[in-house]
Amino acid sequence: MQTYCLIVQYDGTDYAGFQVQPGQRTIQGELEKALQRLGPNFIRINGAGRTDAGVHSEGQTVSFRDERLTVPVERLPYALNALLPRDIRVIESRLEDKDFHARFSARMKTYRYQIYEGEFPNVFLERYAYWSREQLDWAAITECSRFFLGELDFAAFASSGSSVKTTVRTMHQVKVDAEGPVKLIRFTADGFLYKMVRNLVGTLVDVGRGNLKLDDVRDILASKDRRLAGAAIAPHGLFLESVDYS
Amino acid sequence: MQTYCLIVQYDGTDYAGFQVQPGQRTIQGELEKALQRLGPNFIRINGAGRTDAGVHSEGQTVSFRDERLTVPVERLPYALNALLPRDIRVIESRLEDKDFHARFSARMKTYRYQIYEGEFPNVFLERYAYWSREQLDWAAITECSRFFLGELDFAAFASSGSSVKTTVRTMHQVKVDAEGPVKLIRFTADGFLYKMVRNLVGTLVDVGRGNLKLDDVRDILASKDRRLAGAAIAPHGLFLESVDYS
Repeated sequence: MQTYCLIVQYDGTDYAGFQVQPGQRTIQGELEKALQRLGPNFIRINGAGRTDAGVHSEGQTVSFRDERLTVPVERLPYALNALLPRDIRVIESRLEDKDFHARFSARMKTYRYQIYEGEFPNVFLERYAYWSREQLDWAAITECSRFFLGELDFAAFASSGSSVKTTVRTMHQVKVDAEGPVKLIRFTADGFLYKMVRNLVGTLVDVGRGNLKLDDVRDILASKDRRLAGAAIAPHGLFLESVDYS
Repeated sequence: MQTYCLIVQYDGTDYAGFQVQPGQRTIQGELEKALQRLGPNFIRINGAGRTDAGVHSEGQTVSFRDERLTVPVERLPYALNALLPRDIRVIESRLEDKDFHARFSARMKTYRYQIYEGEFPNVFLERYAYWSREQLDWAAITECSRFFLGELDFAAFASSGSSVKTTVRTMHQVKVDAEGPVKLIRFTADGFLYKMVRNLVGTLVDVGRGNLKLDDVRDILASKDRRLAGAAIAPHGLFLESVDYS
């Protein structure tokens, strides 16, 4: 039995998210279908991040075990890409230790959120960035983003819909890049709760619009009450950038 | 009677090109339909460049005359964008002199072609860049691109399909930017023949692959024979970047 690891990029626009759901087009579903065609076994795969509908990936990592796959591991990207839709691409493949698991072995994940500021929407960013006509206060957003650093209880930023043992996560880095026309907010943590990045960005955008003060955000974080934080921002600006192992 | 000028951006992926064609979805068709809904007249518009199916625009300029449009000129982008599909956006509007014509008054146009080099296609550039697995020789491409500068007969690079009085055009600038993962080739000329940019880029890519020598390209240009030049490259890497007047 061998453990395989793949890095997968996708444009999530036309998918109901990563995870298999009956009757829906999902990334996991497409990957498992392609693997099944390489055959002979049906193979269940595990993804490092279960990205939501519309969320994109530059570095999603998946793992699976199989003993009968006849395609050599280094040919897997070519073989799978020939079978996958054009908006999903396997860009790397390798063998891993037998107990490697894309999700449980992950040490850190980095997500990036993109916001486009302009008087009119940009047709080329329609699928890849949240559009704000209003110019946001990026100094305030940057200052506020520092509240999210460290080992914290992110309960106020976890949407219901998944059961987790603890809502404590360690945020290693939050980096705001407001230089270009597309503003970027990057989050690196040991793990993320359901819709956590979108809830955090929704709150930061509220700060950038002046609807929330820095002290409000401090209070929301301390409250651990999901009802107080800003609404989750739209999924299409979100990218799973990379997953770190080691 | 007033002469209006609009700057229009579009993702050309899902259109049969700019120009109206019966039974096809076109950029001009969508713009005229939106203007008709603002009413009361049907308005025929003129575009600076008649971009082909799949070609994109960041700075297409259109003009039209009308005397009964009730929307103030500065509100036109907002009014039209509310009626247009999301892959077409009007980003600027102004009144012009009465004999202004988006195509005939244009002094220069700039087109950009995008090429992505990588072992695997990039899902986010699938619609916006030509993918080359092979690394091209960008020094040779840059050197070759200089042959296209000046007042030249581009007959060898004009596809049949449009009647023009002369195939002589003045190329003011060809700029190759091979720094990033997406390589850019920009052409600025007083005008372009049918599929001229795609024919030029097709030939440059042949040079970059070593299939054509620099002397071959010099000969092709001198021959004025379309059959000798490289095939037109795919449309989806092409952007109409800007149109200059004055």
